[in-house]
Amino acid sequence: MGFIDKLRARWRDADTLLCVGLDPDLARLPERFLAGDALDEGEALFGFCRDIADATAEFACAFKPQIAYFAAHNGGEAALQRLIAHINAAHPQVPVILDAKRGDIGSTAQQYACEAFERYGADAVTLNPYMGRDSAQPFLQYNDRGCIFLCHTSNPGARDFQELPVDGEPLYRRIARTIAGDWNADGNCALVVGATYPRELAEIRAIVGDMPLLIPGVGAQGGDVEAVVRNGKTADGSGLMINSSRGILYAASGEGYAEAAAQAARELRDTINRWR
Amino acid sequence: MGFIDKLRARWRDADTLLCVGLDPDLARLPERFLAGDALDEGEALFGFCRDIADATAEFACAFKPQIAYFAAHNGGEAALQRLIAHINAAHPQVPVILDAKRGDIGSTAQQYACEAFERYGADAVTLNPYMGRDSAQPFLQYNDRGCIFLCHTSNPGARDFQELPVDGEPLYRRIARTIAGDWNADGNCALVVGATYPRELAEIRAIVGDMPLLIPGVGAQGGDVEAVVRNGKTADGSGLMINSSRGILYAASGEGYAEAAAQAARELRDTINRWR
Repeated sequence: MGFIDKLRARWRDADTLLCVGLDPDLARLPERFLAGDALDEGEALFGFCRDIADATAEFACAFKPQIAYFAAHNGGEAALQRLIAHINAAHPQVPVILDAKRGDIGSTAQQYACEAFERYGADAVTLNPYMGRDSAQPFLQYNDRGCIFLCHTSNPGARDFQELPVDGEPLYRRIARTIAGDWNADGNCALVVGATYPRELAEIRAIVGDMPLLIPGVGAQGGDVEAVVRNGKTADGSGLMINSSRGILYAASGEGYAEAAAQAARELRDTINRWR
Repeated sequence: MGFIDKLRARWRDADTLLCVGLDPDLARLPERFLAGDALDEGEALFGFCRDIADATAEFACAFKPQIAYFAAHNGGEAALQRLIAHINAAHPQVPVILDAKRGDIGSTAQQYACEAFERYGADAVTLNPYMGRDSAQPFLQYNDRGCIFLCHTSNPGARDFQELPVDGEPLYRRIARTIAGDWNADGNCALVVGATYPRELAEIRAIVGDMPLLIPGVGAQGGDVEAVVRNGKTADGSGLMINSSRGILYAASGEGYAEAAAQAARELRDTINRWR
């Protein structure tokens, strides 16, 4: 079953649009992972994320590990491999999105596709579309995997280039239209749209039909859940992967971190469902 | 000494504008690296690139390892760390550009900056500007390191979005102007401009003054050296890092790979210098 079908099945079967972001900041992990003189960074990254994944899986339509938080540390890649393997084994019904925002010329993109889909075994990967169609092709060719392209991101700097006017419409709309058309021939594309820009989210939903949208920016970044669901949902009340990372990972700083994460995930799932 | 000063010193002292790209494709390595039942991929990636670096250092103004070729394999990151440490020890006058094309929101970009500058110890990193200024800030803050932003890339798909008309000029020119202005307050920015678009290169040079430009696309991708140097050089005949990867790495496929790489690097340096 390809990523998009796996995601749709999960939306339906678990009644959740919540994506749990796994961005393990070593400086914010509970004490128990940081104790001892010989801190094993990889072990800490893996152990914390495994606990969060196990605690929140029932509320999650997807897990989204952010590779940067692993790649900043020696041993981080092995920890990420173990984490994804654990999720695939323990929670096989929850797809894994590798948040990596890759993008390069074709021969190099082929290597990045190997990294995401072969080495890590991710169901989907986030990609930067700036280099154009041929830079996306090596990823698109894995037609059972998801290719989730940046469209309008959640940060303030999204305004710098993504909103520039192109032939009478902002660039992000042109990008949405291009990806929903030509790039999506195999039906394995999705887009990133920040929760912090609900008006733009509505515009993008109108362009892309029922294409899945990955929505960062709820929680620490200030995005409003009601506006996201109202403006972003499809006719059947799905179509969204609403991500929360910090709000779940660091819901509590002490020994109760896993229970607090589960509670935060449950509450956010319920808040989302209230507006579907 | 910061990246830009180190690069300028190297241009002057070694009389070369050649950047040697280290993109080790396991499928194309000489037999000796692939022998035996228990292929150690990391050892092969490191050993081949070390030999190429040692053979070509005297002709290089910079080395540019492409992280995707390492990240596709288990053990690739350790190989990349060893490679950069080797270059820093054996060829300290040649700066190392980590080709990674990173770009993400600020908190994640901070982790990527740690990856490039702390973990790998690179002098510079390539970055994707699509997410805007705040996504660049964590990199720019390392004001002794270089931030090399995609502007007009070398691939065919560069036309898809980078050339879209924005307020009467193509997007890549707007990006060049923005980065050369506001983003370059600490003087540590550079741009990627593909050799395959020499007209656009001339336009960008006119916008950015003497900012260094990293030029991929000579060789396998078909860029013309004369046009690149004529259109891209600064008044003093420098300003360029003209990259060749495959044309040097795979100049010979057998045991003479290092000598062939040195010969190819020498010839390309000389060809470049003919037009300065």
